[in-house]
Amino acid sequence: MKNKLIGAAIFGQSGGPTSVINASAYGVIRTALDAPEITHVYGAAHGIVGVLNDNLYDMGKEDADELKLLMNTPSSELGSCRYKIKEEHELKRIHEIFEKYNIRYFFYNGGNDSMDTCSKVNDYMQRIGYECRVIGVPKTIDNDLVGTDHCPGFGSAAKYIATTISEVYKDCHVYDTGAITVIEIMGRHAGWLTGASALASIHGLGPDYIYMPEIPFEMDDFLRNVQRTFEEKNNCLVAVSEGVRHRDGTFVAKAQISETDGFGHAQLGGLAARLAHAAGQKTGAKVRGIELSLLQRCAAHLASQTDIEEAFLAGKSAVEHAIDGHTGKMVCFTRENDHGKYRCGITYEPLSVCANMEKNVPREWISTCGTNVTQEFIDYVLPLIQGENERLLQNGLPRFAQLKKIKAEV
Amino acid sequence: MKNKLIGAAIFGQSGGPTSVINASAYGVIRTALDAPEITHVYGAAHGIVGVLNDNLYDMGKEDADELKLLMNTPSSELGSCRYKIKEEHELKRIHEIFEKYNIRYFFYNGGNDSMDTCSKVNDYMQRIGYECRVIGVPKTIDNDLVGTDHCPGFGSAAKYIATTISEVYKDCHVYDTGAITVIEIMGRHAGWLTGASALASIHGLGPDYIYMPEIPFEMDDFLRNVQRTFEEKNNCLVAVSEGVRHRDGTFVAKAQISETDGFGHAQLGGLAARLAHAAGQKTGAKVRGIELSLLQRCAAHLASQTDIEEAFLAGKSAVEHAIDGHTGKMVCFTRENDHGKYRCGITYEPLSVCANMEKNVPREWISTCGTNVTQEFIDYVLPLIQGENERLLQNGLPRFAQLKKIKAEV
Repeated sequence: MKNKLIGAAIFGQSGGPTSVINASAYGVIRTALDAPEITHVYGAAHGIVGVLNDNLYDMGKEDADELKLLMNTPSSELGSCRYKIKEEHELKRIHEIFEKYNIRYFFYNGGNDSMDTCSKVNDYMQRIGYECRVIGVPKTIDNDLVGTDHCPGFGSAAKYIATTISEVYKDCHVYDTGAITVIEIMGRHAGWLTGASALASIHGLGPDYIYMPEIPFEMDDFLRNVQRTFEEKNNCLVAVSEGVRHRDGTFVAKAQISETDGFGHAQLGGLAARLAHAAGQKTGAKVRGIELSLLQRCAAHLASQTDIEEAFLAGKSAVEHAIDGHTGKMVCFTRENDHGKYRCGITYEPLSVCANMEKNVPREWISTCGTNVTQEFIDYVLPLIQGENERLLQNGLPRFAQLKKIKAEV
Repeated sequence: MKNKLIGAAIFGQSGGPTSVINASAYGVIRTALDAPEITHVYGAAHGIVGVLNDNLYDMGKEDADELKLLMNTPSSELGSCRYKIKEEHELKRIHEIFEKYNIRYFFYNGGNDSMDTCSKVNDYMQRIGYECRVIGVPKTIDNDLVGTDHCPGFGSAAKYIATTISEVYKDCHVYDTGAITVIEIMGRHAGWLTGASALASIHGLGPDYIYMPEIPFEMDDFLRNVQRTFEEKNNCLVAVSEGVRHRDGTFVAKAQISETDGFGHAQLGGLAARLAHAAGQKTGAKVRGIELSLLQRCAAHLASQTDIEEAFLAGKSAVEHAIDGHTGKMVCFTRENDHGKYRCGITYEPLSVCANMEKNVPREWISTCGTNVTQEFIDYVLPLIQGENERLLQNGLPRFAQLKKIKAEV
């Protein structure tokens, strides 16, 4: 029989936002509000920073219909942070807040850095004997979390990228004079998103070359490839990851690094324009660099319905697993074969397995030449981008959730 | 009674593509194929360049269902060009081709430069006494054509911009540390598209400042505004037109000009990154520059159904007007008040009125401070972005028209 634990819950969002992170928020919040074991549901303003600053919202005071609109609202509705817990006194402070609000459930939605936060909170509470259940909810467009088949947020970003590449393909093949177009896609260390551009090839609209961080970047090879294709086809479309690196491990975009985020990661950008310029110098062709930038992670209008539903499921499963007596786990997806059709299953892995690790695209899913992906890669991604979402529109524009965000009181 | 003219028709596309230019193509091609007066329908490969090079496609040999998919296929399916007719021998060559194929109808789809081409072809044929009817079909996301209430292509680009601004607003307001985000929008001389970003304000997600080409740009004012708003709100979102100019008329983005297009227009770009960088230097804030680039003109997945239907109507009306005996005109839209509801009407203006002219946003539709638009502007744009399109999807991705493009023979 499970050990029934009565108390309040905190939910927080951390790291870069996605199109569907709020669907996970709704999964956690709705399920927690409906659970008899959970007395209050609090939302942390800007993730763990809101906990440290005693800045919590009372989710029980929100309108139910507005909460439901979280299913199609992009970005992190409660606010996000990039904050790494480094000191014992921070964990002590979190414990103080937990005591103050009688928090017995902590749900944290983010990527591998956020799972590190989650893991530290869990370990500390265990160590001091404070009864509390901590479950991580995965989230990252980068799809690089270990322990899960794929990550909520990835399918929608992949759908956006494949759709946009298809449309840009049509646009940049329009002139008689031809062009070289370089599209820069997010993914600091893993090429999942950049590889997803290959899905556009299903309808013949994919890039000629795909440069992923898993394969060392050689400028001479790049220029030779682009020149050859431009000469053959009078056109060339290239997808490149922001995270491509030289053989010595330095970022190709390193000249553009001007600042680092809170975790010491380099902020990348400007790569598309630089590579396009170099290609133009080499070939004399008209060139254009396009950076998909924030658009690829916030384009809720193109979110995959499969991804939305799975993101909701991840949040819901986190609450159910905690109520069932578990702690220190991250919700993970498995890939089930349901009579030949894709189905997403749920499992749970220790936070320690998921935290701070990164999962790259396997070498065997990258073509031998290193500038495209294999059919296995396409078969892996394709089920995740299926389904058009049904979002609320008013005046022809998206109507997102409008929460009251009433400050919590004990 | 009208003068019945039997013969073949050529249709061509010119200038920058849009999300809906192929809906106009379908309007022309379908109507022409169905018209008893028109013996053959030819598509010019890359607009007038295809005519000059005798490179025509036989549209009668296309599959009817594939042709219909043009309604939701972005970019210029027959290929586009930026070619200005300068010499008499070019018009003579066009006449040769017209004679060869017995062309009696010429439909040309483009912006103000294309109407110049149209006008020259019409004048020449009149002058030499070659019986032929020439009708221009408007097209430009820039919405700057004279003689028409609005232009096909604008509504879809406006819908994309307003939707994207809404989503980016959510994304860039997510961190506790705040940010300044500058979004660069197309529009070389007119601020219609940049102004459309204000539609996102309807749901409270609009930019703090809108910089349009109609108002001289002062860097000091820009930096002062951004700093004040960032200090007040810990965030600032700016929409800026690629075409903003200093008081002396030089482009703010001029440092980035590396080449010019075939009409001698400056190629602009890189402005968002530069302004964001300057704002960061001034305030110390985290900054990001985003260029919507080609995405705003090829995002068929977000095309306004109103715009698609009007684009089709423009093409259809061109053919009907020519069959009715008219020439030297451009199809124009009027704005009708249908019991308080918007309705699009059709009229026809002389090509000479429409060619080479540009329509700016009226000063009275720009707010007194010069960095926003008025309610009149919003009321003007809003009907044009209404309606979600029903596009064909396969594998969760757009399935565009796949034409055979069989070379025409006499």
